[in-house]
Amino acid sequence: MSDFSDSAYDGTNSAHPLASMSDASRPASPVLVSAHKIAIVGLGLIGGSIARRLAEHNRYVMAWNHHPRPYAEATKLGIHCVPTLTELVEGKPDVLILAVPLESMSSVLGQIAPHLHKGTTLTDVGSVKGPVRQVVRKAGLESFYVGAHPMAGNELSGFEASKASLFDNALWALTFDESTDFSRFLTLADMVTKGMGNSFIAVDDGTHDKAAALISHMPHVVSTALVNELVEANFADPAVALALAAGSWRSMTRVSLTDPDRTRAMVELDGLNVAQLLDSMSQRLSRQAALLRAEHEGDEKAFAQSKDFFEQPEPFRRYRRNEEQWDSDDNSAPTSTLVLSDASWRQELLDSAQAGQRVTDIRTTHEMVVETRELN
Amino acid sequence: MSDFSDSAYDGTNSAHPLASMSDASRPASPVLVSAHKIAIVGLGLIGGSIARRLAEHNRYVMAWNHHPRPYAEATKLGIHCVPTLTELVEGKPDVLILAVPLESMSSVLGQIAPHLHKGTTLTDVGSVKGPVRQVVRKAGLESFYVGAHPMAGNELSGFEASKASLFDNALWALTFDESTDFSRFLTLADMVTKGMGNSFIAVDDGTHDKAAALISHMPHVVSTALVNELVEANFADPAVALALAAGSWRSMTRVSLTDPDRTRAMVELDGLNVAQLLDSMSQRLSRQAALLRAEHEGDEKAFAQSKDFFEQPEPFRRYRRNEEQWDSDDNSAPTSTLVLSDASWRQELLDSAQAGQRVTDIRTTHEMVVETRELN
Repeated sequence: MSDFSDSAYDGTNSAHPLASMSDASRPASPVLVSAHKIAIVGLGLIGGSIARRLAEHNRYVMAWNHHPRPYAEATKLGIHCVPTLTELVEGKPDVLILAVPLESMSSVLGQIAPHLHKGTTLTDVGSVKGPVRQVVRKAGLESFYVGAHPMAGNELSGFEASKASLFDNALWALTFDESTDFSRFLTLADMVTKGMGNSFIAVDDGTHDKAAALISHMPHVVSTALVNELVEANFADPAVALALAAGSWRSMTRVSLTDPDRTRAMVELDGLNVAQLLDSMSQRLSRQAALLRAEHEGDEKAFAQSKDFFEQPEPFRRYRRNEEQWDSDDNSAPTSTLVLSDASWRQELLDSAQAGQRVTDIRTTHEMVVETRELN
Repeated sequence: MSDFSDSAYDGTNSAHPLASMSDASRPASPVLVSAHKIAIVGLGLIGGSIARRLAEHNRYVMAWNHHPRPYAEATKLGIHCVPTLTELVEGKPDVLILAVPLESMSSVLGQIAPHLHKGTTLTDVGSVKGPVRQVVRKAGLESFYVGAHPMAGNELSGFEASKASLFDNALWALTFDESTDFSRFLTLADMVTKGMGNSFIAVDDGTHDKAAALISHMPHVVSTALVNELVEANFADPAVALALAAGSWRSMTRVSLTDPDRTRAMVELDGLNVAQLLDSMSQRLSRQAALLRAEHEGDEKAFAQSKDFFEQPEPFRRYRRNEEQWDSDDNSAPTSTLVLSDASWRQELLDSAQAGQRVTDIRTTHEMVVETRELN
């Protein structure tokens, strides 16, 4: 894992009256500027749901969409829709969220760049973080940027499908690199916790993209491959197989039903990580095939190895049983305080995430409330 | 696929008054003896649920369990519990269902064999059919036997967990080989349709076991392998990954949560079929890994092939959308009549299953009502 050194505070915020300060009064230590005024580029499923929820939590929400179709409805909900991207940026928001596909990001950033106020923190909602940072860096806006990936979504799309409840109990991954500004990170953390009522972990892009490959992108490929095994009909009769299909098949192929282009784009963006995991899975499955053949020949060692294979998920089974407890009101996960230092806040957040902690609230610039969900 | 020739009727039934006939009056053509009196060996989740449902449908249900624990409750529900396996068999049931694990089957068959009335049809509820037939054949009882695999179950076990509704809308796979008796098959078909209110397909053991490997046994291995990828923590941090885990991970790993010994036993019984499918999946995944790496290098052909991979499930996506229609009361799947001949009834049933048909009712010995659910 990377090691993260400190970086000097280099952003100010004048849009929010409580936090406005002149360049001369710039502090040596980070400040906690609440994300009061939030601008959203793109009122789709995710952007729309964030806008609704922040407005419900009394944050000042501005939005621009490439087509004004959702404006009438959004305006009724207290979302301040503006006719141009420039107006949105010139509104000097504390946070500007890019809720657009990666393909559009370069063009949007180009339009934003000349007007961006230095007090504005830039973020996004993409499911792969490394490639987004590259695009932001190319646009010369990296010093404004903190990455974000909210774990929320469904099979639908568009503002019509958006709803504040899409983010009930949502967890966000916030991402940093060695140049990320602590105060900007805190502003985004304020938006996620107090603004959205959500929790977060904070990690570097690489850690995020590997974890997302394991938990989501690679499984999407596996699910598709399972269905292709059926559709190709090389081995078993597909009609007979479908007649016998029960809960296990249904669960394992559900994600193959989503929009194939969206899935492909997501997988390709995290391509090298997914490739490495697919190779590992491929070896795992062919090893298991060999074991089954050896068992058929009566090989005692193979029986023992097969037993190990099926017992290996035990820590995960325990985790899932605990999760039911953690999610209940009566037995929620244990909380503690995470203390961050100016010198090593990134490493401290990364260590915390790797220890199964999630930040549920921020108390001060250097104190976070965390909840622990251990895999053991 | 195998071809099935006709076999002479060699069973009679005297337990059911409507159908009793002497050996002398044995017909040349099959008879439809309804499964009026049904004996169940083993009151676990499946045996118990079948017993409850048949009793609710006013069939005469007898049961024996290796421990009388469930007898008090079962008796209240109108299930006639007997103290010994011998008494159960000597009750001359139309159908005797072995609802015990494969490990116990050989011993149970040994105890049954000396007392089995020739009018009794023997069946089971195991999820792999080839191995069960082998055990039945070893016990010298193959002429009594028709295989069955009801698609019903959950993560629980025991009579306490059993319920008639476990079989709501259930589909059964009935299995035959070239020696299977048509009348015995019809008796079991009567039990499934009119007795249980369920539907069925009928195929040979090999077709069943391959389809079950594809749709259930192999995916159980894949699900377990996915969790092991996380637990081994060779690639991504497991705590971070679990924090990011959303619906796709949850769906794909759900079946890994079931009892590992039960899963292993099921997979091992269908071991050679599962091994072949795992090898195929292994190649599929490593091919996809290679494609992703080629795409990363900008290989245009790889992009096109990747697009094909994600689009290949399209017939399955259509099938799942149609399924919602078929399952609704207003737009249920189209029905037609399947006519069976004395000479080729096995092949006709197999063809019907491979055409996506399910038998929902039997009209006469040679006419079945089928519902069609096509994959196209």
